[in-house]
Amino acid sequence: MEKTGFCRADVLEKLTGAAKYADDLCFPRMLHAVTVRSPHPRARILSVDAAEALRMPGVAGVYTAKDVPGVNQQPGDKPMLAADVSNSAGDGVAVVAAETRAQAEAAAKLVKVKYDLLPTVFDPEKALEDKTVVLYGEDNLACEHIVRKGDVDAGFAGADIVLERTYTTQRIQHSAIEGDVAVAVPEHGGITVYAPCKFPFNIKKSLARTCGLPQNCVRVIQPAVGGSFGGKDIDIVVVATRAATVALRTGRPCKMAWTREECMLEGTKRHPFRLVYKVGATRDGKITAMQIDGVADAGAYRSRSLATIWRAAVEAAGPYEIENVRTHIRAAFTNNVYSDAVRGFGSPQVDFASESLIDELACELGLDPLALRRKNMVREGSTGATGQTLTRVSLPQCLERLEREFPLGKPEVTPEGKYRARGIACLHRGESYGAAARDADVAGTDVRVQADGSVNIYTSISEVGQGTHAVMAKVCADVLGVPLSRVTICPVDTAYVPDSGATAGSRGTISGGNAVRLAAEAVRDGMANAAAKETGAAAEDIVFADGKLSANGEALMTFGQAAELCALTGVRTDAHGQWVAPRTSWDFERAQGKTYYAFSYGAAGAEVEIDPVTGKIEVTDLLCLHDIGKIVNYPEACGQIAGGVAMALGYTLTEQAEPENGVLKTRNFNTYLLPTMMDTKGVRALPLAEEQAENPLGVHGVGEASTALVAPAVANAVYRALGVRLRELPFTLEKVRVAVEQARKEEKA
Amino acid sequence: MEKTGFCRADVLEKLTGAAKYADDLCFPRMLHAVTVRSPHPRARILSVDAAEALRMPGVAGVYTAKDVPGVNQQPGDKPMLAADVSNSAGDGVAVVAAETRAQAEAAAKLVKVKYDLLPTVFDPEKALEDKTVVLYGEDNLACEHIVRKGDVDAGFAGADIVLERTYTTQRIQHSAIEGDVAVAVPEHGGITVYAPCKFPFNIKKSLARTCGLPQNCVRVIQPAVGGSFGGKDIDIVVVATRAATVALRTGRPCKMAWTREECMLEGTKRHPFRLVYKVGATRDGKITAMQIDGVADAGAYRSRSLATIWRAAVEAAGPYEIENVRTHIRAAFTNNVYSDAVRGFGSPQVDFASESLIDELACELGLDPLALRRKNMVREGSTGATGQTLTRVSLPQCLERLEREFPLGKPEVTPEGKYRARGIACLHRGESYGAAARDADVAGTDVRVQADGSVNIYTSISEVGQGTHAVMAKVCADVLGVPLSRVTICPVDTAYVPDSGATAGSRGTISGGNAVRLAAEAVRDGMANAAAKETGAAAEDIVFADGKLSANGEALMTFGQAAELCALTGVRTDAHGQWVAPRTSWDFERAQGKTYYAFSYGAAGAEVEIDPVTGKIEVTDLLCLHDIGKIVNYPEACGQIAGGVAMALGYTLTEQAEPENGVLKTRNFNTYLLPTMMDTKGVRALPLAEEQAENPLGVHGVGEASTALVAPAVANAVYRALGVRLRELPFTLEKVRVAVEQARKEEKA
Repeated sequence: MEKTGFCRADVLEKLTGAAKYADDLCFPRMLHAVTVRSPHPRARILSVDAAEALRMPGVAGVYTAKDVPGVNQQPGDKPMLAADVSNSAGDGVAVVAAETRAQAEAAAKLVKVKYDLLPTVFDPEKALEDKTVVLYGEDNLACEHIVRKGDVDAGFAGADIVLERTYTTQRIQHSAIEGDVAVAVPEHGGITVYAPCKFPFNIKKSLARTCGLPQNCVRVIQPAVGGSFGGKDIDIVVVATRAATVALRTGRPCKMAWTREECMLEGTKRHPFRLVYKVGATRDGKITAMQIDGVADAGAYRSRSLATIWRAAVEAAGPYEIENVRTHIRAAFTNNVYSDAVRGFGSPQVDFASESLIDELACELGLDPLALRRKNMVREGSTGATGQTLTRVSLPQCLERLEREFPLGKPEVTPEGKYRARGIACLHRGESYGAAARDADVAGTDVRVQADGSVNIYTSISEVGQGTHAVMAKVCADVLGVPLSRVTICPVDTAYVPDSGATAGSRGTISGGNAVRLAAEAVRDGMANAAAKETGAAAEDIVFADGKLSANGEALMTFGQAAELCALTGVRTDAHGQWVAPRTSWDFERAQGKTYYAFSYGAAGAEVEIDPVTGKIEVTDLLCLHDIGKIVNYPEACGQIAGGVAMALGYTLTEQAEPENGVLKTRNFNTYLLPTMMDTKGVRALPLAEEQAENPLGVHGVGEASTALVAPAVANAVYRALGVRLRELPFTLEKVRVAVEQARKEEKA
Repeated sequence: MEKTGFCRADVLEKLTGAAKYADDLCFPRMLHAVTVRSPHPRARILSVDAAEALRMPGVAGVYTAKDVPGVNQQPGDKPMLAADVSNSAGDGVAVVAAETRAQAEAAAKLVKVKYDLLPTVFDPEKALEDKTVVLYGEDNLACEHIVRKGDVDAGFAGADIVLERTYTTQRIQHSAIEGDVAVAVPEHGGITVYAPCKFPFNIKKSLARTCGLPQNCVRVIQPAVGGSFGGKDIDIVVVATRAATVALRTGRPCKMAWTREECMLEGTKRHPFRLVYKVGATRDGKITAMQIDGVADAGAYRSRSLATIWRAAVEAAGPYEIENVRTHIRAAFTNNVYSDAVRGFGSPQVDFASESLIDELACELGLDPLALRRKNMVREGSTGATGQTLTRVSLPQCLERLEREFPLGKPEVTPEGKYRARGIACLHRGESYGAAARDADVAGTDVRVQADGSVNIYTSISEVGQGTHAVMAKVCADVLGVPLSRVTICPVDTAYVPDSGATAGSRGTISGGNAVRLAAEAVRDGMANAAAKETGAAAEDIVFADGKLSANGEALMTFGQAAELCALTGVRTDAHGQWVAPRTSWDFERAQGKTYYAFSYGAAGAEVEIDPVTGKIEVTDLLCLHDIGKIVNYPEACGQIAGGVAMALGYTLTEQAEPENGVLKTRNFNTYLLPTMMDTKGVRALPLAEEQAENPLGVHGVGEASTALVAPAVANAVYRALGVRLRELPFTLEKVRVAVEQARKEEKA
């Protein structure tokens, strides 16, 4: 495979500091707003006294729930400002707006809120079982999802061995360099919001609702985005609505920019899971049944729990063909900070558990972990856990490549006394939203060729740092046969660009790329017709390449001349491409269905060195290979994988945003530990082009799968190094040191 | 006819001051730029010494022609900054940029330019004949146009009477409240320009050329526009290029805002004409031949002289069926400030002459002026001067209505001693660009229905104060059956909206309106199909009215529900409407052709009271009726006519921007006299809906025709009052007092 690639157009602006992020924006008469928050996990708000704050210099106003112009609730049910009861510590209660941020912060400290503390629940299982404290409805059940295939009882009965293991994953957060920030400008009887976002049209629709405006009067413009990692969605609506409330009440532009502490306190987190796996197998390693019971902590509000739980339940049994499967995952409301989609949503949690489990099973059976996987893995034509027939399954190739490039070898102790071993893991991952989504999976994209042959693309697939805009530009340039430098992507502005859906579910290249291809093809065909009319060549003979149109090997005109010809003769050189993903469906009765229109596959190998003194796990080699079908930009695909892997290293080893009695203790990067470049030295990202995916571009998504393999591969390596199984993420120094102690005890015994 | 109408959405923002004009915009680190101008009508630039200016506080740079990044010439051939020779007093030579405008102005005074004065020519006829001073090429001929029908010599031979008369018209200027201003912001490797403009895509293309950028990197955003009157086009390119030059050289945003004096000094003007008419007629009033020789002053640069001369030549013979016509109009280069299209371009000049001439002929023949017009006027099926067959000719109805509403009566002297009389005039006017335009007359417009049923329109037809956006919104609302309040027009931004062509040639409603209708119909049909699929009704039975969809009298769903249905099922609710005007053509050999795809007709009556002491002409009654086919917004149509008439009153009576030896003497509104509300008390605007025009909307343009009838109607009234013919515009106090003197002398004689 050619490992070719190209530079991204956004890089120069970002490197030189010319790129404008939302917090760089400034408008005449702009106010600055800050949030006053409840410090209590659950409390009734008795009164808000803003008198003293309002007397402070520069203060323009203090606003509470009653000032929110529209519905004081985001689609996922969190109020923009707590009205009566706050269900989570950090919930916004009031917004203070002033001429400067410092003035707003000073005044915010003087807003006096009286609370009546209410009883709380923090443990999700307790929330579901012991209903003393019920946040909403009757039972604190935020959502649940069930998958049922075959007869698990029969499957377990037919097994030679049955294992039951419990795995837990922690709460982490997005941690983009850029925090959540929005600038709201009142204009034309509506509101324009500048905000980094991964789903601009969702923000727009949510804002229309929270601002009480028709959708044609709400405009979301995306400046440069400083990272998403699955965020820049739900939290942005909160920030934007608060800024918009001030803007609409005062008639002045207003900026709200959350500090890192604010992002941590009030921002959404990855769902923590507790997963109980039960697996049965024959002595020779054939898995006969798998049963999964999981409980996730939704926190105080529902947000995107449904989509997360759905994906977790669908993928929980791993990439294996198992005749009998029963999965039941529930999410519970608690008084913790609320959970939402984080890059990979749902996958990293269950993949950690299921791929740890497979290794445990291999160990119990005395089988090679790779051989056990091969024995049970899905193949072309396999029936997955949800009953769907799988095609273009490249898992066998992934495992073969892994075996070749990453021999497991034997555990050893280094001369420095470190425990060294290797572990592996593999995965399947559903493409895009899947059947959980209410809306059709549609991406609209426009392409317009200017009269001088330069080209614009219009899309709302967001460039959040992953290079998606460069990929779309390349797809377009290839169809039109022009250099990449002739193509630019217009800034995302919901007033103008078509709705391309969310930059989520790793769908940017699949959905956005296919849409831009359709649009570019339509433009090309229109230009070919015009050129045919002008030159007498047959339209179907005309080829677009190297910046010109040719027919039967003869150059007809340059691409620029063709564009000018169209402009002069009134031939349209713009077109809309509408990519509609294949249908998915779910039968709730049978708990089976076509959950995702396609799956992608990958595998990883991790080599760890464990320092017995500090408990530090150093991942000295981390090979992550993902089959992504056609590779549009090789270096960028590597970057996407490496970035996801880096994020997963934090998930595996250090990151945790744990509340104590509902109050977060980790409030900045001094205690919330992100991996640095020093931690990623061993990462080897390897995009594979094994099976062209079943879409015109032939691509798979790669944004999220890379986040899911590291934890189980490391866990399996740690087990092979120490003989001790870690089942609770993250593998902190303390936990590893306990494991080392245990290993030494067992060694002695 | 129903005189219904509606309020414009832009009115509230404009009335309350919330609307943001270009000069209201402000960007972080924005520079302010001012122009250093040549005071000489023609001079070689020997050197520009900026050393002292550069030492002034806050000065960021001084830029000359060599700093213009691209082609230092606008399409109409004026350099953005004079490089070698300046051909007109007021030409920009350098640009000074500083932190504040005051700093830039102070520094500009210190830029030392050395000139070598060159010989000049100011009289256009002299420029064409005596070629001592030649500005360009061989002969100072900027352009010319000829129309030839039949045999004028034979026509004159067959006439009982032949008159020859000479008429002259003066130089005026656009005089919008808002001057020319642009803010250029360097971003994304290109330039974004905020500027009021009537042809945003022309500005964009011109800027791409002058800035040396591909068109996909140049973005023109239109803030609120403070009036056009045919301007905000050529001058804006000059201003924008200068601001962009600073922006691209410094990497900082830059504003250039011309003061009123600057707009007058350097801004384009209406072409002054000298027209020699010769007309032959039989004793009973049948016109047998007409010959017109005209010379216009193009000034120092060509600009839109061709389009102006073309229209003048085509319309010069008036709305009459004359067997033998020969028209020859030339435009000459001189060292005067350059001429360009001004609202009505070409028509007001020739209509003043031809309609004065008809009255002179009636007087000579002793016939009633209305009767003479009736005898010769074009009718259904007539052949016009350019040889095209005319259809849907409503001139007979216009004259009938004028006769009914405006009896000519007899001249009289008022008790205060004022001379009072009435005069009339009528016209034909070609729609849109006509065959002079190089490009096809195409208007693209998009309509998008949001998921909540609110609607956006995307067009580059500019709202310059004439109410065109309200008209487009109404057309769209009517097709979709939703209230007007549900429809908004997105701000004009060339990066996104389709090219709708110029807001010129009175084509806003015809071209833009028909395009929006096509787009809205396409959206409606798509929604009807989706609703049909959902409900089982036949798509062709579904009617969109009153905010809902019905079939056979039964309501199916609300419009909002239909929009949501489409959003959920991935049915597109946006569409592009492409209005392509019928073809026009011109045979240069035969000097005949289909000049315009349609003509509109109108008539006017003016009653004047002339104060013999002051020479002031008070227009006490001024009935202007224009057949505009279907009337979308009655009050706005009245406003359009009244506005054009007010502008024409200034043209007729007071406005003149006359240079002395190439240097303008009228540099502000203290000496350049615009009509005020007090001068328009007698105006009665009467839009007629006589003949539905031949386009799906059935509309005619009305923006410009209203500027052309006032001068001849007043001239004819003055003649009837005094018995003295005024053939030189404007009718200043001085000229009228001379006429009164002459009248009294003749009275005594």
